[in-house]
Amino acid sequence: MFITFEGIEGSGKSSVIVHLAEVLMNKGFGVTTTREPGGSRLGRTLRQILLDISSTDLTSEAELFLYLADRAQHIHHVIRPALEDDLVVLCDRFADSTVVYQGYGRGLDPKKLHEFNDMAVRGLWPDLTLLFDLDPEVGLKRAFTRNVAEQKTASEGRFEAESLEFHSRVREGYLTWAAINKDRYRIVDAMQPLPDVCKAAERILLEELEKRGAPPQGSG
Amino acid sequence: MFITFEGIEGSGKSSVIVHLAEVLMNKGFGVTTTREPGGSRLGRTLRQILLDISSTDLTSEAELFLYLADRAQHIHHVIRPALEDDLVVLCDRFADSTVVYQGYGRGLDPKKLHEFNDMAVRGLWPDLTLLFDLDPEVGLKRAFTRNVAEQKTASEGRFEAESLEFHSRVREGYLTWAAINKDRYRIVDAMQPLPDVCKAAERILLEELEKRGAPPQGSG
Repeated sequence: MFITFEGIEGSGKSSVIVHLAEVLMNKGFGVTTTREPGGSRLGRTLRQILLDISSTDLTSEAELFLYLADRAQHIHHVIRPALEDDLVVLCDRFADSTVVYQGYGRGLDPKKLHEFNDMAVRGLWPDLTLLFDLDPEVGLKRAFTRNVAEQKTASEGRFEAESLEFHSRVREGYLTWAAINKDRYRIVDAMQPLPDVCKAAERILLEELEKRGAPPQGSG
Repeated sequence: MFITFEGIEGSGKSSVIVHLAEVLMNKGFGVTTTREPGGSRLGRTLRQILLDISSTDLTSEAELFLYLADRAQHIHHVIRPALEDDLVVLCDRFADSTVVYQGYGRGLDPKKLHEFNDMAVRGLWPDLTLLFDLDPEVGLKRAFTRNVAEQKTASEGRFEAESLEFHSRVREGYLTWAAINKDRYRIVDAMQPLPDVCKAAERILLEELEKRGAPPQGSG
């Protein structure tokens, strides 16, 4: 099962993934957690370029194609092999981030972006996507506090440095894209305190596993 | 005027560009020479990844998207500004390399690749493309000798290490693509000794400049 986690900066995705991985492992599932950009060997180089706040001269198109290159490597070398190995894959951001950030955020054509994504992932799409939805003003404050705590403002702050207006477009874009893809999307209210966000995500995940008749506890 | 130079490895493109730049400057033109991959700041990092023989785990799609990212930056930060400055731009490989190497060479859809290219270059296409055509067996021998002389076998030899069959598909692909785009293509016989290739390319270039009514000697 391939599960992706989407949402604006500061929505708590990364912490939720750590929590859900533990929940799944305790139930006997094999789990791998990964992220974009940066899930493959090539991806780590690309992540540096894409998130570095000094990459200010990146055109929208160059940014798009770097994400797609990262994704093509990631799906081929990490995600597909893990799925073939019967692992549950939890991925922090995936193809939808491109449609939403480069499409709804930067104004490239979402339909075209979806086509490009489909070539990058060779038709392999998530079974389930959790969208962590919150007010971008709150999200940016959280992301800023985290970045200061982790001392990564300079090296991974390019998106946090975008305007509030940009992040509002991204939030709206996510809600639109989730409505278009409602078969695989579930929305989590990320305005709650983090422990509650974790619990809400856990409840949804267990419901979805049950729906799909995933192997019960201890059988993995 | 935007002029691109295409052809398989060992066709002599790079030496011809040096020669033509001198010819044009002696006639009073402002000239800039550049290349892909690697014409922009980001491009230099991408060139290392793309040409390094140790990048053997690159999927066809990841390779494609890295070239497109390089191109988007290059056109925006180097080529378009130079053209706006009334310079003649001589570019060693451009968008056609992608159609031919990733399309005819690696089996991706040439029509789709052309669409991707069009997004990367934002509609800015060359006025003239010179294709240096030769037997790939001869070309590869020349490229090998050059790489040994320049001690760059390891760091920039990924394409030279492809099979002769691959390079034959690329040669055929170039001839097909040149026929499809015959309005801007001129073919140079690159089997001749290098000084003759230079002379042939010079003759074609001067003919094309005359056709276009480019400013005569000394007026640039």
